[in-house]
Amino acid sequence: MSFPTRPISRRTLMRGLAAGSSLVPLASLALAQDDKPKDKIGYCIVGLGRISLQHFMPGCLQAKKSKIVALVSGHREKAVETAKAYNVAESSIYSYDNYEQIADNREIDAVYIALPNNMHAEYTIRAAKAGKHVLCEKPMSTNVNEAQAMINACKAAGKRLMIAYRCQYEPTNLRAVELIKSGRLGAVQSIESAYGFNERAGEWRLNKKMAGGGPLMDVGIYALNACRYLTDEEPRYIEGFCSVIDRDGRFDQVEENVAWVMRFPSGIMASCNTTYGARMNGFFRVHGSKGVMHVEPAFSYDGLQLRAQINGEPELLEPNNEKDPAQFTREADHFSNCILNNEEPKSNGDEGLRDMHYIAEIYKSCGRQAF
Amino acid sequence: MSFPTRPISRRTLMRGLAAGSSLVPLASLALAQDDKPKDKIGYCIVGLGRISLQHFMPGCLQAKKSKIVALVSGHREKAVETAKAYNVAESSIYSYDNYEQIADNREIDAVYIALPNNMHAEYTIRAAKAGKHVLCEKPMSTNVNEAQAMINACKAAGKRLMIAYRCQYEPTNLRAVELIKSGRLGAVQSIESAYGFNERAGEWRLNKKMAGGGPLMDVGIYALNACRYLTDEEPRYIEGFCSVIDRDGRFDQVEENVAWVMRFPSGIMASCNTTYGARMNGFFRVHGSKGVMHVEPAFSYDGLQLRAQINGEPELLEPNNEKDPAQFTREADHFSNCILNNEEPKSNGDEGLRDMHYIAEIYKSCGRQAF
Repeated sequence: MSFPTRPISRRTLMRGLAAGSSLVPLASLALAQDDKPKDKIGYCIVGLGRISLQHFMPGCLQAKKSKIVALVSGHREKAVETAKAYNVAESSIYSYDNYEQIADNREIDAVYIALPNNMHAEYTIRAAKAGKHVLCEKPMSTNVNEAQAMINACKAAGKRLMIAYRCQYEPTNLRAVELIKSGRLGAVQSIESAYGFNERAGEWRLNKKMAGGGPLMDVGIYALNACRYLTDEEPRYIEGFCSVIDRDGRFDQVEENVAWVMRFPSGIMASCNTTYGARMNGFFRVHGSKGVMHVEPAFSYDGLQLRAQINGEPELLEPNNEKDPAQFTREADHFSNCILNNEEPKSNGDEGLRDMHYIAEIYKSCGRQAF
Repeated sequence: MSFPTRPISRRTLMRGLAAGSSLVPLASLALAQDDKPKDKIGYCIVGLGRISLQHFMPGCLQAKKSKIVALVSGHREKAVETAKAYNVAESSIYSYDNYEQIADNREIDAVYIALPNNMHAEYTIRAAKAGKHVLCEKPMSTNVNEAQAMINACKAAGKRLMIAYRCQYEPTNLRAVELIKSGRLGAVQSIESAYGFNERAGEWRLNKKMAGGGPLMDVGIYALNACRYLTDEEPRYIEGFCSVIDRDGRFDQVEENVAWVMRFPSGIMASCNTTYGARMNGFFRVHGSKGVMHVEPAFSYDGLQLRAQINGEPELLEPNNEKDPAQFTREADHFSNCILNNEEPKSNGDEGLRDMHYIAEIYKSCGRQAF
């Protein structure tokens, strides 16, 4: 599949978007009750699943610019217990039914949406209409149309939208980008990347309606997104295949495996894999004319490690000793700073939309053969 | 690109070929001067390049069933010097002009062809006509038609043909195959594999006519072939992209990079890369439902290493301490044993032809975009 786009760099795209940041009026800056600028952005957590409870919320406890001020959950008891632990007033606990009432809570500047993929669009749009900024988990949505609607709603409301691509704020991934940009690897020729795991029966991720797709939506997107930020380019051609191997009922609705290749405008090649049928350590390997870099784990919550063999240099071995939830602290504070300083997030809605577009292209190319 | 083949396993194919081994009449068994069966197969080395001088010929010195008895070279002086080192009679040195005279040398049972790719077909066919078995380096040829002509010529002459896929006889690669077949990795879902290097300007490998193509022909073929012997299946769908990044004159005729994906009948996916623009350690990684195996280096002359993490087992770490040229010893003796025992080589002409076919398909799919 060819995309007849000009080989415009992602940095150029970002600059363009930043230049257009007047879309968000200054009035949207977070103000405290006394109308003085806030020192921390107050988040309402939408969905109390594992990523909220075990990662994002603990991450906010260590944040400089972010704090938890409200919860949205369908489980009142769980919410009350969580509210106590985070010093959130019981009056700031909402259900999915009275979600709109967050509009009246001035403590809430932004929502963090950690719901099944098919609820991302609805809860982003409702939050924007309630006058809140939105930090939404990846994948942005289940399809391109939903993603566009999310962008439109936030623009119309003058609110910021960020997709929670935590690896874009993570030091080892940033170090990998820096090594490439510095030219120390020479001209990058190709990348391999993969990420997957053995999914359990009964999980919502296996439900096509809720997830929008299989492992490509949930974990393959890390490899896809990494190839884009590592190259600082948008893929020009994409082809992929899907398959189901384990006929054990898990994969009646979504694919089990996806393999795909991408060709970037400069000629850089990427070959990627994702699966719900095997443990697949997240990694990427970048081959340059002057050296090779291998990051593994590359997408985990912690324990990341970068190795590089560069001609004429001693081997680089850079383990990352930061512990979970440090990545979530960085992610939350990036968005908080963007809100406080009226800046566009690095991983904004357009960034999420692009991945939804490429994912759609991969599924389209898979569609030529049944799985 | 779809191949409407039945999902027939490679083992089944092999059995079929073995059953048809009456193609080679018993008269073709190697006989010594006194017409008693030989204990070693006598090889005529065709082409005194690096792989002959530094690898295959030293490998024969350690072989049980193989010995060097003749040389073919365009450099008489080099040939005379080499002949002395290998105790080869000066009368058994041939040039490319009088190559047909090998027919009269009863010491020569087989030729080992280590010439530029575009000479493989011609020198295989001439050897077969001279009544000699043929061990030909990979890639078998520069295209499918040449490969088929090589098979036809050897069949017509009642001579064995083996393509020098040394990894198919190499213990670490065989161990990887065994681990998969044993089921210890569970159901294999996907494979990543790559192999490449930074090619120097002026090498014949960059000449389209001599090489038939770029890195896919020379080193990508290792990854392609590995995915086939690891899965014991033939790919059903293949898609790939090519590119040139370094516009330094090296890649005026052949591609610099190829990335491709393959989908096997069982649903196993493979994503592969090859390059002439970067050091790319040969590796493959196999993801199964019960474990992951990583072999790296996987295709080098020595120093191979296998690692596997299998659920509920201690991590496997299996370095291979065999030194070069052990792989060439195994390869030569496999072919010699096949000749002595009137058996079909594991990596016969049909095996080489299949790779030539898949390579053609990859190039065809690349052809949709210019590089």
